[in-house]
Amino acid sequence: MFDKIAEVSLLYDFYGQLLTKRQQDVMQLYHEENLSLSEIAQEFSISRQGVHDAVKNAEKSLYEYEQKLGLVKKFAKTKEVLLQIDQKLDLVIKENKNNKELNDKLQDIKEIIDQLDE
Amino acid sequence: MFDKIAEVSLLYDFYGQLLTKRQQDVMQLYHEENLSLSEIAQEFSISRQGVHDAVKNAEKSLYEYEQKLGLVKKFAKTKEVLLQIDQKLDLVIKENKNNKELNDKLQDIKEIIDQLDE
Repeated sequence: MFDKIAEVSLLYDFYGQLLTKRQQDVMQLYHEENLSLSEIAQEFSISRQGVHDAVKNAEKSLYEYEQKLGLVKKFAKTKEVLLQIDQKLDLVIKENKNNKELNDKLQDIKEIIDQLDE
Repeated sequence: MFDKIAEVSLLYDFYGQLLTKRQQDVMQLYHEENLSLSEIAQEFSISRQGVHDAVKNAEKSLYEYEQKLGLVKKFAKTKEVLLQIDQKLDLVIKENKNNKELNDKLQDIKEIIDQLDE
């Protein structure tokens, strides 16, 4: 599985908009811009403990949203399937490398998958 | 696009767990079991207007969740891509119908896609 920071970051991508404005601000400075708790405390003129609590509460909410909705897990499964398709297409392309027409068409399918990641 | 009922039903699949217990109960009877407002009113011993308001508020919440998170739209895009891949694979299979080895492998890829729908 993901490590904790990557996991929280992914949960934030999905559910961040459900947090309060203050929680979003704190999470962005802490997780995206990697500021320390003390630096964020200074930014908002609150205690270091206050920032720590805000981060913990925000993370707790994100995990609760995922527990209720499971949409990150659902997406991870779809992404895994797309990766499998991509790898299997690579194999077929390799095995039929002299068939240009076929390869162009399979390459075309791979490009549809790639577009989804953009 | 979807019609309204299908749309609400899809939104409910994604975000229903974020509604209150009462809203979930009402939505299930109204949208899944197709009971009338009067029937649901009787079930919960509240007024028909009360049920009507609960349904409207629940629907409003579901649309707001989608406006904030956009995950139904994100999923619809992925599903559309998988459908495109499936259709393109069908074409390649048809064009190479005498190549059993190739067809088996492409069929294998199609099955991975099908499994995701289950």
